Amino acid sequence: MVSQGAVFEKMWSAIADIGRDPVTGGYRRFAWTAADLSMREWFAGECTSRGLDLVEDRIGNQWAWWGNPGSSGNGGIATGSHLDSVPDGGAFDGPLGVVSALAAIDWLRADGFQPRRPIAVVNFLDEEGARFGVSCVGSRIITGALSPDRARALRDGDGVTMAEAMRAVGRQPDQLGPDPEAVARIGSFVELHIEQGRGLIDLGRPIAVGNRLWAHGRWRIDIPGEPNHAGTTRLSDRRDAVIGCAHLVLAVRAAAERHGSLATIGKINVSPGGVNAIAGAATAWLDARAAEEDALSATVAEIGEHVRSTDSVMTEESRTPETVFEDALVSRLAGLLDGAPVMSTGAGHDAGILSNAGVPAAMIFVRNPTGVSHSPAEWAEPDDCLTGVAALARVLADLAGDEQ
Amino acid sequence: MVSQGAVFEKMWSAIADIGRDPVTGGYRRFAWTAADLSMREWFAGECTSRGLDLVEDRIGNQWAWWGNPGSSGNGGIATGSHLDSVPDGGAFDGPLGVVSALAAIDWLRADGFQPRRPIAVVNFLDEEGARFGVSCVGSRIITGALSPDRARALRDGDGVTMAEAMRAVGRQPDQLGPDPEAVARIGSFVELHIEQGRGLIDLGRPIAVGNRLWAHGRWRIDIPGEPNHAGTTRLSDRRDAVIGCAHLVLAVRAAAERHGSLATIGKINVSPGGVNAIAGAATAWLDARAAEEDALSATVAEIGEHVRSTDSVMTEESRTPETVFEDALVSRLAGLLDGAPVMSTGAGHDAGILSNAGVPAAMIFVRNPTGVSHSPAEWAEPDDCLTGVAALARVLADLAGDEQ
Repeated sequence: MVSQGAVFEKMWSAIADIGRDPVTGGYRRFAWTAADLSMREWFAGECTSRGLDLVEDRIGNQWAWWGNPGSSGNGGIATGSHLDSVPDGGAFDGPLGVVSALAAIDWLRADGFQPRRPIAVVNFLDEEGARFGVSCVGSRIITGALSPDRARALRDGDGVTMAEAMRAVGRQPDQLGPDPEAVARIGSFVELHIEQGRGLIDLGRPIAVGNRLWAHGRWRIDIPGEPNHAGTTRLSDRRDAVIGCAHLVLAVRAAAERHGSLATIGKINVSPGGVNAIAGAATAWLDARAAEEDALSATVAEIGEHVRSTDSVMTEESRTPETVFEDALVSRLAGLLDGAPVMSTGAGHDAGILSNAGVPAAMIFVRNPTGVSHSPAEWAEPDDCLTGVAALARVLADLAGDEQ
Repeated sequence: MVSQGAVFEKMWSAIADIGRDPVTGGYRRFAWTAADLSMREWFAGECTSRGLDLVEDRIGNQWAWWGNPGSSGNGGIATGSHLDSVPDGGAFDGPLGVVSALAAIDWLRADGFQPRRPIAVVNFLDEEGARFGVSCVGSRIITGALSPDRARALRDGDGVTMAEAMRAVGRQPDQLGPDPEAVARIGSFVELHIEQGRGLIDLGRPIAVGNRLWAHGRWRIDIPGEPNHAGTTRLSDRRDAVIGCAHLVLAVRAAAERHGSLATIGKINVSPGGVNAIAGAATAWLDARAAEEDALSATVAEIGEHVRSTDSVMTEESRTPETVFEDALVSRLAGLLDGAPVMSTGAGHDAGILSNAGVPAAMIFVRNPTGVSHSPAEWAEPDDCLTGVAALARVLADLAGDEQ
């Protein structure tokens, strides 16, 4: 008999090269690109080979059901995560939750478990928002948190709209919209994810239960300038968007320090972008988060004041309030998992979007031995990953073994 | 009979749409791209229709000869400029010199002029360096100022080397190298160019004679960081390359102000470039210029100190000393052109590269009514352009009408 660890490893190696940069070793699996489609196809193959019923909803989320989704009045137990990545992302952020979900089903079946409620493994579309700038697109659309008109009109860096990108791969953007039926099928959602900080290192524990997501959001800031020749325009005649961008970056950091929040500029476009051209425009994207709603608001307000004082324009692209997962579900998981620690995170997740839409949700975090995430250096030890699979299997057995 | 202005206008309208961005109206004519090839083909057609003998040298510069280039022991009189552009560049920077040269030949012929020395119109390859980062590639290679090994290995933003880009369009990068024969054919070089500052506005004059190019250069600055998740990494644990880049931008500006020079960051790459990713690396390109060599050295030294103190790395990509054009030629032009003002510029030009290689060179500047260059807003009034053509025709008649 093949060991449980070997099956898990085999799934990992099957996707190791998909969308991977040969130089950095990081991943570029952006929504509806070739790498994303390869990941989706891999997922479909794994589900089919297990006899799960695969359904792609109108948005593009993939649902693989063990059992009839309509068979329980309370909905099924959904688990899974996402298969897309940030630019030059790590191997674990997203895929660990999907691979662990499939492995957990294998383990439950090997144990002869028969679910009383249906179980779904989900691959949520475009969680990172790396291509179109808005995160958790799949879960936001089915729950109505992102309007289909806005989603269709989002553009990637090449000016391609989401609608065009979907059409190019045979999907129908006209059908985008809230999908209450798909949401109603989810009685509970448990997302396993690599931890993206150093919490479990400090605690010396392999896994934790996630109970809360910080308030967070993204803003686009357009900085004006006047394009001109770098070699002939007097300093006093210049209106250089890059100088404005530099002041913004430092103002963002100062605001985060003052309010005990996190605020980051990680993406900058400079136009026209020539070495000998004074920038006529720059765009910077702000990612801001805080454990408390007030701290986030204060941070964003301070940055907004700086922006207005410099004739720049700040546009909210997404904002997600603090999310507190259902206490009963969190407590049930902590109890099942030998008193695993309970912790919050500054990262956003589809579990948070579902929770805000009224779905009982919780998370399981797996230790990250460096704390590094969104980087090729992201890592989790195989033993910790298998501890995560075992935990997820125990949780699914408990939740799906119970009619409630 | 068709008016001289109409022929000039017709040439302009033939190239108005080549490589033009339909949204901004700016040009993207980068070396060996489709837009560049279209410009080269247009140039070849204009030369052929005039019965000029077109020669492409081993580097890719196009030379169109009126008269036998070997017929004068002192070489011929070359004029022209370049047809490539910066990103989102204006219509005049480069093409004005080429179009004016062809128009000047038309005018001389209409007057029945017979040159005693041969006249060449040249289109220099890759003057802006927008694609591979080094400017004046065509004139630098023929004069030996840029080594063929270094040129072949230069990479564009997509990682394509200049050698690969040349092969893709049927050129032979193996043949790159100094071309003393091509240089020896140039007895004098007069480049007409739109002014890129406000000097002629202040003087209220349509044209000037250029006598000097400032010392200038380009440097690449690599700023280190540690990629990580923007939503989960404590501020105190961060090493954010974007913050380092912001400090650099402000240090560059301060150095320029202190030393009375020009220093600009107009191009920045942030890696990985995700909204929710702390930057693990950033690269910024510095363009620095000064009227005096000492001021440039002091500026670059101060920036270099800042760079070293932040663990960044600064690499010189090109540096051109102050260029003083041959006094006799400058005086001759000023005398011919009704005492046109004489002025220097902070911009680099192929005329400077040739001058540094011992070729007598000078320039004619045409008034820029806004002072704006390297921008879609770059402009010159048609009357001023025709004044420039008349000036160039007078200069060519004088220089090519004389055996000396």
